[in-house]
Amino acid sequence: MASYSGQWEKYPIAGEISMNSLQLDLFRKTLIDQGKLDFSNPVLVGVSGGADSLCLLHLLWTLQLPIVVGHFDHQLRAESAQEAQTVKQLAEDWRLPCIIGQEDVLQLAAQEHLSLEESARNARYRFLFNQAQIVKAQAVLVAHTADDQVETVLMHLLRGAGTSGLRGMPYCSLSNPWSQQISLVRPLLATWRVEIETYLQEHGLVPFQDPTNADVRFYRNYLRHHLIPILEKEHPKFRQRLWRMAEIIRADYEVLDHDSEEAWTKSCVEQGEGYVAFNFNGLGELPLGIQRMLLRQGMNQLRPGIRDIDFTTIEDAVQFVKSPTKTHQRDLAVGIHLYLEGNILWLANWEVNLPAGPGVNWPQLGEQEILLLGIPGELDLPNDWKFRAEAISKLEPTQESMLKSVLNNSNTWICWVDANSLQLPLVLRSLRTGDRIQPFGMQGHSQKLSDFMINAKMPRRARKNWPLVLSGNQVAWVPGYRQSEVFRVTDKTGIMVKLTLSRRG
Amino acid sequence: MASYSGQWEKYPIAGEISMNSLQLDLFRKTLIDQGKLDFSNPVLVGVSGGADSLCLLHLLWTLQLPIVVGHFDHQLRAESAQEAQTVKQLAEDWRLPCIIGQEDVLQLAAQEHLSLEESARNARYRFLFNQAQIVKAQAVLVAHTADDQVETVLMHLLRGAGTSGLRGMPYCSLSNPWSQQISLVRPLLATWRVEIETYLQEHGLVPFQDPTNADVRFYRNYLRHHLIPILEKEHPKFRQRLWRMAEIIRADYEVLDHDSEEAWTKSCVEQGEGYVAFNFNGLGELPLGIQRMLLRQGMNQLRPGIRDIDFTTIEDAVQFVKSPTKTHQRDLAVGIHLYLEGNILWLANWEVNLPAGPGVNWPQLGEQEILLLGIPGELDLPNDWKFRAEAISKLEPTQESMLKSVLNNSNTWICWVDANSLQLPLVLRSLRTGDRIQPFGMQGHSQKLSDFMINAKMPRRARKNWPLVLSGNQVAWVPGYRQSEVFRVTDKTGIMVKLTLSRRG
Repeated sequence: MASYSGQWEKYPIAGEISMNSLQLDLFRKTLIDQGKLDFSNPVLVGVSGGADSLCLLHLLWTLQLPIVVGHFDHQLRAESAQEAQTVKQLAEDWRLPCIIGQEDVLQLAAQEHLSLEESARNARYRFLFNQAQIVKAQAVLVAHTADDQVETVLMHLLRGAGTSGLRGMPYCSLSNPWSQQISLVRPLLATWRVEIETYLQEHGLVPFQDPTNADVRFYRNYLRHHLIPILEKEHPKFRQRLWRMAEIIRADYEVLDHDSEEAWTKSCVEQGEGYVAFNFNGLGELPLGIQRMLLRQGMNQLRPGIRDIDFTTIEDAVQFVKSPTKTHQRDLAVGIHLYLEGNILWLANWEVNLPAGPGVNWPQLGEQEILLLGIPGELDLPNDWKFRAEAISKLEPTQESMLKSVLNNSNTWICWVDANSLQLPLVLRSLRTGDRIQPFGMQGHSQKLSDFMINAKMPRRARKNWPLVLSGNQVAWVPGYRQSEVFRVTDKTGIMVKLTLSRRG
Repeated sequence: MASYSGQWEKYPIAGEISMNSLQLDLFRKTLIDQGKLDFSNPVLVGVSGGADSLCLLHLLWTLQLPIVVGHFDHQLRAESAQEAQTVKQLAEDWRLPCIIGQEDVLQLAAQEHLSLEESARNARYRFLFNQAQIVKAQAVLVAHTADDQVETVLMHLLRGAGTSGLRGMPYCSLSNPWSQQISLVRPLLATWRVEIETYLQEHGLVPFQDPTNADVRFYRNYLRHHLIPILEKEHPKFRQRLWRMAEIIRADYEVLDHDSEEAWTKSCVEQGEGYVAFNFNGLGELPLGIQRMLLRQGMNQLRPGIRDIDFTTIEDAVQFVKSPTKTHQRDLAVGIHLYLEGNILWLANWEVNLPAGPGVNWPQLGEQEILLLGIPGELDLPNDWKFRAEAISKLEPTQESMLKSVLNNSNTWICWVDANSLQLPLVLRSLRTGDRIQPFGMQGHSQKLSDFMINAKMPRRARKNWPLVLSGNQVAWVPGYRQSEVFRVTDKTGIMVKLTLSRRG
């Protein structure tokens, strides 16, 4: 192999953690207990040729697992083709099948509008999992070490993370972004680089510098060569402690994840392309930690591209659940809309056409539908709504209290109007450009009906086909919201008309 | 007041977190929402006279809460008595009741065998909570800031912590080490020092340097003046992010805590002075994170003095639950003993006298009890055990298979012996110094019976009164474990004696 060009960090050995994790029997136990591997099915091992993956490959080869070597040439460096050849030669020497993949990652990154690191990583894992599927491998094995784990956790910590980020990488993830069947296994996650170095020396193995370290290279290097040594100077076991923290938090996260899965089943009442509907009260009664997880999961479902949803966004949503805005809606920073209707909290992409949803049943007219009605009269509307108009005889002067109750009517689904002011037949139709209304109680002021609907917080998607009651060309009533000032009952009213929109049965 | 001698850290303002948390209406909301305070009951405010507590006191005073000022003079510095006077004067100026406490903390620390910092802290909180009880305060309020929170979390992080340590301090803890009724409230936990500085300047308030910062002074100062600035240089929002992390993890921890409480109820089958008994299989089926919490809780219960039980100790216990040692017992580093009996896992202080426990019922003799028995004969023992001896006629040579089954008897509660080898009456008594046994199958070798019991893994606390069956002075059988080679049935045996120890009913 190419001669060793890497620079080893001379970290002190990780005393209580390093239990000679590279002794063969312990390594085998790790493969079984942590990696959930069985030894009769093939595994695909990602081998860059660097120290970590060379060590991993040698261990697996010594244990005589059915191995397929996978090497991905990112074509980012001049020597990469030569390196691929060297890995191939090694596999041949060890009599292992080997698959070499390559892609011009630089070009790919440009096409995908991703960072070079991200594109490289995606391309590499795509290749490994594709090949794993072809060779019917049970798992893809990669050589992340305890040091990689510490760096990952520290990175999450410094860039802002919760329980999910602090748990670090798992030994075995069955459900990973690249496959639901083939697991991603990291058997060296409890092994420190210094142990790997010793192992390679003992076995006379010479790696080349791992080119996969190109991943977030600068930042990782800053952590590895600058920050971690600073932290370790004052806290000699810092790395081991951070590693342990990840171990603890990973198990804790599994508990939370399980709880949140249960809570999701109970609280999520509907989900579809671009929306998730929660039981609002149910969600509000959940512990804060679970609320956050459900809201995050919902957002992840709507925006699978977003890697990390910001804490503030989650908190905005939590705040809404705690006390919704007066408008019953809120835009979140990520382009997701929160929308409360009755007891349903919608989490939806803005442009999505939401279903009426469970527990929501608006009165709606058919597209372009126009209905005419005399008095008395009754009309059946879609979704079990019905409209009724009836005349009520002149109120006696003594019946002042009744008049008062008519004028103070607060049921927005019933409307009293002055019969004399109406032009018959009544017209039921939906919103047209140019419609205006002079809302009840506002003398002399009329406004665009579409503005009125917004101000009245009518659900956006309900506005288009909302039934309006018109006398001639004038809107007399927006059922459920407000009637027009123009047709109001006064003490001069002779005959009143009572309009009712209600659910049948 | 004494002129301001402290040095302010010129941190950048904590943009997204600082929501002008010191605006009175927001502060009031924090007192209600986070502090769970009602404004009609008195609160006791810990006031050192430093910036943080001065600010807190002024805010509460402005809101006209019923306040009692508490100041504790640690008598550690020459000027401390003068400072106490200054706080008293301020309270007088503001017409607030004020209680001054003092103790020679240096002397106290020597008496308590604690560090100066810990003794000072304990004495201060003891004083505050005692006074709070006297004045019937609903809560003790202290002035920890967002910066204190970050420092606390970072300290936990660097010294090794799990979810419990990373959650930092809560706004309100009802169950604190000093009281179960009076809560400890930290209303400034979301307020940065720089905001406090601004507030004091705006209100013309001059603090003296907070002497309570004597707490872990050196290490906190290292974090504050050295490490945090280093971390913040590369990660400008590091403090805010760590603060947020604590917020997230605190809520997550509450979920875990609730889960673990539920699990405790199900898994803990008995607890008493110095021991906790778990349902072993039940514990093993719990998620790892919950197992850890229960084991930690159990250990904390046995060793309330220990501030933090080491991760390794917990992992040792977890490992035991996963696969118990062959001896079914294990000593943990903290002087706690793990002990598996049947399906009961004991977590116990070594010297504790465990109860027989649920599901455990050993045959035991009374102290010094000696019982004699002819053949056939039957004896009632304590705890519903009975002992029986009966003669079985000589086996016919054709009954070889029966003889074989007698010789291969694997029921350790039944024992076949050669009647001719016995000296009657049989004696039942417990262990005496000098007792030896030649275990079945070991020709010519005898060993101390006490050693045999240890090797046979007889529960330590069961050994003393375990019933032994003797013929003359020789131990013939240790029921439940092994018989003596000396009295074995051979093909030359004429009459056999069947000894049985069994539960009645």
